Amino acid sequence: MNKIAKSLVAGLTLTAIAGTALAQVIGKTEDQIRWRQSAYHTMAWSMGRIKANVEGTYNKDQVVEAANVIQAIANSKMGYLYQPGSDKGKGWKETRLKSAFFTDKETLGKVAGNFGQQANDMAKVAAGGDAAAVKAQFGKLGEACKGCHDKFREEE
Amino acid sequence: MNKIAKSLVAGLTLTAIAGTALAQVIGKTEDQIRWRQSAYHTMAWSMGRIKANVEGTYNKDQVVEAANVIQAIANSKMGYLYQPGSDKGKGWKETRLKSAFFTDKETLGKVAGNFGQQANDMAKVAAGGDAAAVKAQFGKLGEACKGCHDKFREEE
Repeated sequence: MNKIAKSLVAGLTLTAIAGTALAQVIGKTEDQIRWRQSAYHTMAWSMGRIKANVEGTYNKDQVVEAANVIQAIANSKMGYLYQPGSDKGKGWKETRLKSAFFTDKETLGKVAGNFGQQANDMAKVAAGGDAAAVKAQFGKLGEACKGCHDKFREEE
Repeated sequence: MNKIAKSLVAGLTLTAIAGTALAQVIGKTEDQIRWRQSAYHTMAWSMGRIKANVEGTYNKDQVVEAANVIQAIANSKMGYLYQPGSDKGKGWKETRLKSAFFTDKETLGKVAGNFGQQANDMAKVAAGGDAAAVKAQFGKLGEACKGCHDKFREEE
């Protein structure tokens, strides 16, 4: 399990952060869900920007900007926003989190770790500016997103 | 006007991006508003994390992670998400954007430029790890956020 996966899994219980300043800003369940949904939608916009660049006219700056957003969010310990019970509730909309998120920590560690790795690699490859390499890495990153959705997100 | 302000203002008309891949991902007005609201809420969570650290127990990693998210979003040319007419409409909720956003470009350039500068400085200061300096910079960044809200966001 890499550093990102560890921090995500570690963030899953309030116990793990008792006594830290962060406990103050985890907020209520609905706050956690709204912040989660906001972060994923921000990453979705960024994924859309990268996709448009690899499928159309390539602009290095746009890809770097978008990849940096995804990398920063992927490294921001979003696990804190998955407190027990937050598989039920409404942020901007009802959460689609499956309760398996709280029980299947082995799978969670794998998919979260893979996402963090692919997000970091995406930022590196974007900085390199090779459109073909970016396209390939974008595919890997998309698969990493899907890996988590398949396991832990309910269908709409 | 610094680079961020220029890119924001430049992103305000579709003309400026005609022919680029990005035009494909600006989406409809409601998409722009939802993506905007998502990005601001993601930054709000990050601001809350920094605040909790400067007011409570200081954890350098948490502050760096949060500052990096704000910096990445601040540099992601969110101006593209402010197409003409997007002062009316609903993303996650009704937009509070004032129509002055589209007419008072001089003020917009100033407040956007200041925000970009303070966000970049926040990330630098966070990396330095000096809690007192972070607290001071957090104040400046908060003022930069407020500068735009005061001018271009309707009260709730």
